[in-house]
Amino acid sequence: MSDDFKAGKSHGGTGIWRAVGEEKFESNRLEAFSDAVFSIAATLLVLDINIDSTGQGHLWEKIGHQWPSYMAYATSFLTIGGLWMVHHSVFRRVHAVDGVVMRINLILLLVVAFLPFPTHLMAEAIHNRDAERDAVIFYGANLFVISLMLTALVTQIRRHPDELTTDDANEYFESLAGFSAPNLGSYVLLVAAAFIAPRLSAVGLFAIAAYGVARLR
Amino acid sequence: MSDDFKAGKSHGGTGIWRAVGEEKFESNRLEAFSDAVFSIAATLLVLDINIDSTGQGHLWEKIGHQWPSYMAYATSFLTIGGLWMVHHSVFRRVHAVDGVVMRINLILLLVVAFLPFPTHLMAEAIHNRDAERDAVIFYGANLFVISLMLTALVTQIRRHPDELTTDDANEYFESLAGFSAPNLGSYVLLVAAAFIAPRLSAVGLFAIAAYGVARLR
Amino acid sequence: MSDDFKAGKSHGGTGIWRAVGEEKFESNRLEAFSDAVFSIAATLLVLDINIDSTGQGHLWEKIGHQWPSYMAYATSFLTIGGLWMVHHSVFRRVHAVDGVVMRINLILLLVVAFLPFPTHLMAEAIHNRDAERDAVIFYGANLFVISLMLTALVTQIRRHPDELTTDDANEYFESLAGFSAPNLGSYVLLVAAAFIAPRLSAVGLFAIAAYGVARLR
Amino acid sequence: MSDDFKAGKSHGGTGIWRAVGEEKFESNRLEAFSDAVFSIAATLLVLDINIDSTGQGHLWEKIGHQWPSYMAYATSFLTIGGLWMVHHSVFRRVHAVDGVVMRINLILLLVVAFLPFPTHLMAEAIHNRDAERDAVIFYGANLFVISLMLTALVTQIRRHPDELTTDDANEYFESLAGFSAPNLGSYVLLVAAAFIAPRLSAVGLFAIAAYGVARLR
Repeated sequence: MSDDFKAGKSHGGTGIWRAVGEEKFESNRLEAFSDAVFSIAATLLVLDINIDSTGQGHLWEKIGHQWPSYMAYATSFLTIGGLWMVHHSVFRRVHAVDGVVMRINLILLLVVAFLPFPTHLMAEAIHNRDAERDAVIFYGANLFVISLMLTALVTQIRRHPDELTTDDANEYFESLAGFSAPNLGSYVLLVAAAFIAPRLSAVGLFAIAAYGVARLR
Repeated sequence: MSDDFKAGKSHGGTGIWRAVGEEKFESNRLEAFSDAVFSIAATLLVLDINIDSTGQGHLWEKIGHQWPSYMAYATSFLTIGGLWMVHHSVFRRVHAVDGVVMRINLILLLVVAFLPFPTHLMAEAIHNRDAERDAVIFYGANLFVISLMLTALVTQIRRHPDELTTDDANEYFESLAGFSAPNLGSYVLLVAAAFIAPRLSAVGLFAIAAYGVARLR
Repeated sequence: MSDDFKAGKSHGGTGIWRAVGEEKFESNRLEAFSDAVFSIAATLLVLDINIDSTGQGHLWEKIGHQWPSYMAYATSFLTIGGLWMVHHSVFRRVHAVDGVVMRINLILLLVVAFLPFPTHLMAEAIHNRDAERDAVIFYGANLFVISLMLTALVTQIRRHPDELTTDDANEYFESLAGFSAPNLGSYVLLVAAAFIAPRLSAVGLFAIAAYGVARLR
Repeated sequence: MSDDFKAGKSHGGTGIWRAVGEEKFESNRLEAFSDAVFSIAATLLVLDINIDSTGQGHLWEKIGHQWPSYMAYATSFLTIGGLWMVHHSVFRRVHAVDGVVMRINLILLLVVAFLPFPTHLMAEAIHNRDAERDAVIFYGANLFVISLMLTALVTQIRRHPDELTTDDANEYFESLAGFSAPNLGSYVLLVAAAFIAPRLSAVGLFAIAAYGVARLR
């Protein structure tokens, strides 16, 4: 660790950040922080579901009328849940991570923690023909960026094969990288589809999330 | 682990999810994620309790008038607290879990994280004779689904007796499974009762949660 | 563990809860859950601070006018922070806890997670002469109950001296129990004082919390 | 530990807090609590971003119009993320902490958990020429206090060189302390600049946060 630090200093960086720039981080602390953000973001989603139960009309109708909120909730929750599982599978094959991985992971967390906002926007907009197209595109784009950051994370980790710990790590990452492209492609297609059929696109985004969890066994 | 992974690949699955599909997950990471969702959902419940203290009238009356909110808060908090304890007892008897358990657990978390919404709805609706019946049914149904997912989780875990770790695990799970039916039955009865006497049903749902915690010793 | 479990069954309890009723719980899992609730409750406090920055008037005046919110925020945050530290000191001296401790701890958490509500109420009411008395009493009563549950927790733990782990545990708990009474007494006095001078009482509640943290060294 | 405790008692302190006042705390529990507050505060930031999607006008315009919210979100998220990384680097070089470090850390957490409020205020005020100056100053001052508490934390830790664990700890802290001054200075300059050019100052605060994360490698 001392050597890493000296190396950091010898590059002549300035500022507090530079001082810690060359450190290796143990991945378990990164996992704990990521898990916290994942679980909080997933659990905050419910705060955006609201019904005015004090007004007139049957409550069941109002509850039913909120279906876009439930679909949006389930899509985001399952997306984050699936992401958590992949994240988990990735990092238990990694011993230590460098600053670039930390940085990419932080951006990933920033985008995941942002997800409740487009989720809420999509849920609210689906009963509003003018707004629903834009809202679904915005939401799908957010999911695309999450997927992109995950791909970047995995790509960066694979550059340091000496820090992988399990025997199957290389094989696992190869396979994971090979599957990232179709996943990213699905999001691109669904965002494009949202220009014509936003509701169908929203259902598609839910299907990707549900399919992901359903494939686990 | 390498073998699990190869097995996953040999089934010819597609997509990123398939790649991790056959993994065994260490249960401690699953526990940490579940604990986080349980604690966040339980702590978010308070955000739905509100009083307009700026208006006229004595504040104590307003505070007292909110009793449905406190009962709903306590019911959900104790339900989640009791669930956490059972979850805890289950998973410290389990060494590793497969993808199916992960999937069931994720659905369980999805329903638990959803609980603040029907809790809020019931608390708000109890002063509104038109809405209270529907709200209590919706709330009770949510608790029923939570209980159902817990039963499914335990049933699935018991299919892999080789992954149980403690000596009393089998005995414990047998006993737990035997007790699940009456618990599910209570929820069915109380949801049915809500059609006739919603407030009584709400008190019953609180009683189940409080009874659960009171039986611990 | 098997014996504990059999003991539980032999008492002829019914229901899922009974099945786990006689278990010993490892305290580290209880600590993790408690820490999560403490940290979430403390961090949620900020959500109740709001200013309408879009209206007229200087923003600094509005920011200054919110002083009751900041004092209430600091009081609750420091109370929870101090509670966390005592909780920490208690449980690292305990190896395993029984169901009664779990139950008392759950009630403690229920009251702590409830704290953001009276905090918000007090912050809002302090500019409203009619409401401030009731709000401060309600808030102080909540702090009293938290302190009471902590005392109950410690009292119950001391009944099982065989489960204490550190050499100084007995001495520590004796000292802690001896100090609980004055602490509870302070809350009683301040709640009584709130009937006459609510603002002074609120300052007193802040002082207790700040004093607690200030005494740490 | 017993000795620490006796030492605590011999100083003749009173009150529950005194009893635990002389304890050494293991830093891992402090880290877990801090991590929780950091991750919750960072994830709560999104709750303050809102768009009224039900009104008239194109949703994209409304989404675009919210740019101050996104910038404020990113600034606070990256600031907390960077703070977390430094906190991480500091505490894995420390074996045990005394009560003063606990106290300083608690104040640090209090200020970090407060951050969502000025973040929201700044995001809302930037479209309001009267309010934006005050809001940016208030926000920048908050970041300054966070930075100040971090400096105080590090200064206090360095007073106990016998509790540092890694070989490079001394060197690391020396370097960190040397870099704190320019960092604090940047905040002072940007708060001063906010009197004249609040928007430029807000961009500067974002730049510091982004620069911090960008320097990691």
